[in-house]
Amino acid sequence: MSDSTEDCHLALDPAVRDAARQRLASIRGHVEGIVRMLEREDVYCVDVLRQLKAVDGALEKVGDTVLRSHLHHHVTSARERGDADVIVDELMEIMKYR
Amino acid sequence: MSDSTEDCHLALDPAVRDAARQRLASIRGHVEGIVRMLEREDVYCVDVLRQLKAVDGALEKVGDTVLRSHLHHHVTSARERGDADVIVDELMEIMKYR
Amino acid sequence: MSDSTEDCHLALDPAVRDAARQRLASIRGHVEGIVRMLEREDVYCVDVLRQLKAVDGALEKVGDTVLRSHLHHHVTSARERGDADVIVDELMEIMKYR
Amino acid sequence: MSDSTEDCHLALDPAVRDAARQRLASIRGHVEGIVRMLEREDVYCVDVLRQLKAVDGALEKVGDTVLRSHLHHHVTSARERGDADVIVDELMEIMKYR
Repeated sequence: MSDSTEDCHLALDPAVRDAARQRLASIRGHVEGIVRMLEREDVYCVDVLRQLKAVDGALEKVGDTVLRSHLHHHVTSARERGDADVIVDELMEIMKYR
Repeated sequence: MSDSTEDCHLALDPAVRDAARQRLASIRGHVEGIVRMLEREDVYCVDVLRQLKAVDGALEKVGDTVLRSHLHHHVTSARERGDADVIVDELMEIMKYR
Repeated sequence: MSDSTEDCHLALDPAVRDAARQRLASIRGHVEGIVRMLEREDVYCVDVLRQLKAVDGALEKVGDTVLRSHLHHHVTSARERGDADVIVDELMEIMKYR
Repeated sequence: MSDSTEDCHLALDPAVRDAARQRLASIRGHVEGIVRMLEREDVYCVDVLRQLKAVDGALEKVGDTVLRSHLHHHVTSARERGDADVIVDELMEIMKYR
């Protein structure tokens, strides 16, 4: 019971979640476009790499909004809530690869 | 005319292109999964960030195979072909954000 | 007056600070070594790039310890302290380039 | 004998080497400044992280000039010279962590 209450507290903010979902649906379309691009025999390597970089940048923006929301709603209140150690470990694990 | 011949020379290697297409189709599925994940009211921020990182890693692997193929087939022969300046500029532009 | 109290609370943890200082002194020595390496007429580009990457990795490790300490001691208690907005903005600014 | 001739061909361009050396000497000074900064008991974590990021950006600029020179002088002529496989492997190894 306390678990589900906790989960509820740490759920992604609805407005951020909705915006992230829409952006990711658009990214999915972008990836779909690169899949079709790769069906063309004459596709140039660098054009593929440019598209991959654009997708990467778009993913990073989504990640930034989710991260900012997490910091704002959950990380800054971790001491009060009593789960600071877990919160910090998770954050370091995720940011290691950014 | 000479342009289309050039383009033909610099097309992405068919085997690499095919592998990249299959991987990207799988990445599209992964992104689709995150879109559905974001429909759940109780989704946890860090789980979203982990999935975004996984997609990022998969995109990077695709990019690595395309880049390696480009270096192998086009960049190392640029001096012979006479387009070294353009090739280097393109490469620096793409790698700036890696 | 309240400012100096605040600053005092948000100072880098002494043990982390000491370890970071020692690692950075070692990194300074590493950079010094690359400066000397660049005095050799026959130095190979890729050897320089490998050394730069090693320094980059060492800097990242120092950054990780400072960041973890900051998250642990300051970010997770920001809500209690009442400076969550500033803390989150600073963090997003720093992590943007990681 | 052929080895030393080869090494000679693949040496870093003198002008780029000189510029890189001067920039790195300046970066060494910057790192030295952070070491001193870390001697202060009241140093703020985020100020340290900002300085580390500045050093990282400066190192990246040096790396970019060395990489561009390497691509221009050595990579684009690898096919002619006959060492394309080694050149590509080295490049992929270095860029993996960028």
